[in-house]
Amino acid sequence: MKFKRNVYLKMKTLQEARDILFQTFGDLPPLPAEEISVPDAVGRVLAEPVNARISSPNYHLAAMDGLAVKAEITFGASAAAPRELIVGRDAFYVNTGHVLPQDTDAVIMVENVNELDEERVEIEAPAFPWQNVRRVGEDIVATELLFPQNHVITPYCVGALLAGGVFSVAVKSKPKVLIIPTGSELVDWRKLKTQDIKPGQVLETNSFVLGKLVEKCGGTFRRHEMVVDDSDKIKQALKSAVKEDYQLIMVLGGSSAGSEDFAKTAILDLGDIKVHGVTIMPGKPVVIGSVGNKPVFGIPGYPVSAIIAFEQFVQPLLYALLGQPHPQRETILVQPTKKIASKLGVEEFLRVKLGEVGNQIVATPLPRGAGTITSITEADGIIRIPNHVEGINDTERVSAELLRPLAAIRRTVVVVGSHDNSLDVLADELKSAHSELTLSSSHVGSMGGLMAVRRGVCHLAGTHLLDTEDGTYNISYLKKYLPDTAVKLIHLVQRDQGLIIKPGNPKGIRGIEDIGRRDVRFINRQVGSGTRILLDYKLNQLGIKTDAVNGYQNEEFTHMAVAVSVLSGSEDTGLGIYAAAKALNLDFIPVVTEQYDLVVPREYFESEPVQILLEIINSRTFKKRVEALGGYSTENTGTVIL
Amino acid sequence: MKFKRNVYLKMKTLQEARDILFQTFGDLPPLPAEEISVPDAVGRVLAEPVNARISSPNYHLAAMDGLAVKAEITFGASAAAPRELIVGRDAFYVNTGHVLPQDTDAVIMVENVNELDEERVEIEAPAFPWQNVRRVGEDIVATELLFPQNHVITPYCVGALLAGGVFSVAVKSKPKVLIIPTGSELVDWRKLKTQDIKPGQVLETNSFVLGKLVEKCGGTFRRHEMVVDDSDKIKQALKSAVKEDYQLIMVLGGSSAGSEDFAKTAILDLGDIKVHGVTIMPGKPVVIGSVGNKPVFGIPGYPVSAIIAFEQFVQPLLYALLGQPHPQRETILVQPTKKIASKLGVEEFLRVKLGEVGNQIVATPLPRGAGTITSITEADGIIRIPNHVEGINDTERVSAELLRPLAAIRRTVVVVGSHDNSLDVLADELKSAHSELTLSSSHVGSMGGLMAVRRGVCHLAGTHLLDTEDGTYNISYLKKYLPDTAVKLIHLVQRDQGLIIKPGNPKGIRGIEDIGRRDVRFINRQVGSGTRILLDYKLNQLGIKTDAVNGYQNEEFTHMAVAVSVLSGSEDTGLGIYAAAKALNLDFIPVVTEQYDLVVPREYFESEPVQILLEIINSRTFKKRVEALGGYSTENTGTVIL
Repeated sequence: MKFKRNVYLKMKTLQEARDILFQTFGDLPPLPAEEISVPDAVGRVLAEPVNARISSPNYHLAAMDGLAVKAEITFGASAAAPRELIVGRDAFYVNTGHVLPQDTDAVIMVENVNELDEERVEIEAPAFPWQNVRRVGEDIVATELLFPQNHVITPYCVGALLAGGVFSVAVKSKPKVLIIPTGSELVDWRKLKTQDIKPGQVLETNSFVLGKLVEKCGGTFRRHEMVVDDSDKIKQALKSAVKEDYQLIMVLGGSSAGSEDFAKTAILDLGDIKVHGVTIMPGKPVVIGSVGNKPVFGIPGYPVSAIIAFEQFVQPLLYALLGQPHPQRETILVQPTKKIASKLGVEEFLRVKLGEVGNQIVATPLPRGAGTITSITEADGIIRIPNHVEGINDTERVSAELLRPLAAIRRTVVVVGSHDNSLDVLADELKSAHSELTLSSSHVGSMGGLMAVRRGVCHLAGTHLLDTEDGTYNISYLKKYLPDTAVKLIHLVQRDQGLIIKPGNPKGIRGIEDIGRRDVRFINRQVGSGTRILLDYKLNQLGIKTDAVNGYQNEEFTHMAVAVSVLSGSEDTGLGIYAAAKALNLDFIPVVTEQYDLVVPREYFESEPVQILLEIINSRTFKKRVEALGGYSTENTGTVIL
Repeated sequence: MKFKRNVYLKMKTLQEARDILFQTFGDLPPLPAEEISVPDAVGRVLAEPVNARISSPNYHLAAMDGLAVKAEITFGASAAAPRELIVGRDAFYVNTGHVLPQDTDAVIMVENVNELDEERVEIEAPAFPWQNVRRVGEDIVATELLFPQNHVITPYCVGALLAGGVFSVAVKSKPKVLIIPTGSELVDWRKLKTQDIKPGQVLETNSFVLGKLVEKCGGTFRRHEMVVDDSDKIKQALKSAVKEDYQLIMVLGGSSAGSEDFAKTAILDLGDIKVHGVTIMPGKPVVIGSVGNKPVFGIPGYPVSAIIAFEQFVQPLLYALLGQPHPQRETILVQPTKKIASKLGVEEFLRVKLGEVGNQIVATPLPRGAGTITSITEADGIIRIPNHVEGINDTERVSAELLRPLAAIRRTVVVVGSHDNSLDVLADELKSAHSELTLSSSHVGSMGGLMAVRRGVCHLAGTHLLDTEDGTYNISYLKKYLPDTAVKLIHLVQRDQGLIIKPGNPKGIRGIEDIGRRDVRFINRQVGSGTRILLDYKLNQLGIKTDAVNGYQNEEFTHMAVAVSVLSGSEDTGLGIYAAAKALNLDFIPVVTEQYDLVVPREYFESEPVQILLEIINSRTFKKRVEALGGYSTENTGTVIL
């Protein structure tokens, strides 16, 4: 078996690729117009300017309840010389909104009229022409331009159009996009159950994400059935697609690297390739091609690559087709929480979590892999690291594009530190009770959390650091590492740490005492982690020497990674939390209960969001939900320790 | 006929009314949940937290094309001591995305492998455990929280949910709103043709505007058939409505003042009224009531009142039902172009046009009437003038809520001055060629335009000021009124001014010479207007004394108002532009051709938007479209006069 490497045409920068895109497709045929009812046109783009057909008001209307008169017959009326008017001849009762009777041009408010009898009234002041009258065309004048072409209809516009006698409008039809997912390993989630997914089967998700993004840009999409990795089959699909009335086609690569080649080959055989490879990350292997003068995109298979490629190339073309400016994301200056190295010659789209801590918006980088969809669903913003820059520093602020409104980011509580599943429950309860607030947590370990507190880049830190001298948690670490920072310490949960073992416990492990056994392979956590400290403490208590532990030197960085090592068969056990075992359907032997607390800088303790969180932490609902997770005790949950 | 005045309960301030609203309806039953397919859930609100059902990746996958190995068998390999591996026993070819074979934990990139023969390969460096591997749960760990309740699903979320094995989610059902339009004068535009609208018939438009606003907030609406002004009929409609499964009901008043009383009476008879009358303008007569514990709103009939009442009361309740924070509009500081008086004790929602001129965002007030729907469709922002303030000054900046993105406002070309219909064509052509740019024009007359230039609050001013000494246009006024401002002057159009007359010319008017006739009633324009100057110039030329003109003292402020006076029968003729006559199907006798020019401050002349406008002004398309309007000559259009 040999490999065909992905050979790129000369790679283009983002700007070069965009220029080529618009040079090639700047002159696509206009979208056909369709005539639709005005209320249905909300969100649609006008294909033509719209002029009013009637004026609004279309007749002079009374703007008050009162008597309609010809103003000039009232001239000279005064308290000293009241003017008598005959109802039905000189003056006419009208309600607000009624058409003015013929030859009247003013309305006298009913309060200013003395009714003498059924037929006669008296006024003590003159009326001015057009007083209390809504005149023809006061709002809209027949023939005037209501909205220019390319205007997007809003609910407000519905009112102006209907009032102007315009009941239907010509709008641009939605750009039609065909999405062809390719990849032999792909399965359609609509045709199976979650539990039936087999090893090697990958759920095809990109077509749905990109389809929904197409809709968000004002287009429609059809998803072609999935095509296996075979250039001829892809070519066949593409060939029939370009004959249909799609404005744009996307061929989605599977997650295997070869797939883009199949798409590229198919496009090249049927048309032209304008760009293959752009110096962006994620999104590098994007293909921009043209088949039968229609834009055809080869979209990389990793989910974040697919999204970035779509947003940087397909989306601008869709907006251009609709005659709309490409919406620019708001940008703000943010303070990175750490240094980030980046490759020269590549523009990186770094996803970050954002939150306002103190007087700055802090940005915590999310995983950078193009395969990590949660790095974009969890992101509040994107830091673009330009081609010519080797990374970003934590010493200066950088610009970030916002994915959520700034107001929402300002209402985000930033938790940094060791992760615990009870934080998920906390986040959910917060969103339930106070939907305007968001809990955003980044996982950097207990010590990482304390350092974040010290550097003033979080509101809360989750920590479970055991003092092996006296068996207490966290307090001594606060004294040592945050001597100059005033903090409060809140007890969140007691949680079980224990041995994660294969289902059915084939090695018959009973507890920590057995990890010294020759036939038991152990997987350890990294030095400095709370769990490693705990293990060493336990081994010491039991008098087990570390070199007696088979695998003591093999380190993992998360509870989940330990569980994965056990699941994948190479190791027999490791120390971790119950939730990690449960997630992978592994068995679990509780070994010790440890304390997981929240550190809160004093300055944020009295803030409304933190007080709301404390209220939730102390609620019965929260405690019950945490207990229900398994492996937790909430006996002292909510206690302010310090 | 007597009038029942609208008697308000004790009026409430906006804040008081909002407090009562949430006290009364803070505890409405939760929206029922519905389970829907994940892609269909985009834009919907999660009714429950969603946890991952599977990990992603669900198995260890190769992250590169290459050879999968157990890392430990490669330890010690070096260039000096290459390690030989047997394919199919020690090492296995894998493609990116493939599941790692049993008992392997690393992938060696194909570039780093020497293929000795079909069965044997050689490596010169060791592999590290998990290198080039996407491990189980690297993106998503089974059981972890993907999204909390009240989270709004985005297209990105679709990817994370499907990858986490979640194919359907429980979302909150959309709040169901019933809209009952009331008013005996109302007609349904769907049942008639524009040309068949009779005097006194008013198109019912509010239900469609508010219905679309309901949809924008995430709800659905049904429009009840229109109900005449009759409390019993409204009561009947309301009575059956509260039995159905609507979460909220709006009774829309007609435009007649009595209508709200009918709604109020109906609500009061069936339930409670919590608020009637709020100190806001527009929107004052809003009713907040409760029938069968359901919120029932009485919405005032004027379109802008209806919108403000909806946005201030109904919308926050809809968002609360959906567990969403009420989105706040972005606010910025703006410079008013003029002083605005405002009533004490009333919070006014002043609609303004915005644009960036020089270094400030300038705000030009739009008409303030609640009946003027175009005051909100044309608005870029709203200045809230608080209860305790008597108005805003043009000497200090005030806060404005944005209705359009700031970026769009920054790309708005601000034209102030005399209006001409060719500016509509210009706006439309600009939107067509450069959809990112907007031309926004405010009509304050020629002199007003020059003053706006002097005060630096516009990019362009439209002007047609005749120098009666020498018959030239504009130049002498620039010298006189803008002696210290460097400007350019661009000729836009020559337009016909003439006598607007009744259809068929019943008085047999032939020209200006006839307005001195005893039997002809004339309607004049205000002193200082270009048209008044023109009239006086013409009268002088013809030797007609102004006191010979029957109606010379009666002044109107716009071309359209002159046309309206002629249409409504009281006057026989007035001087105005052809378009005004055409708009009202009146006849027109051309009298003189006048010059309409654009003044551009020198500092903006070279700016890209102005240069783009000049290009359009010089285009054949623009000239052709202007000529097609009738009453124009474009012979010298685009000439730079100064």
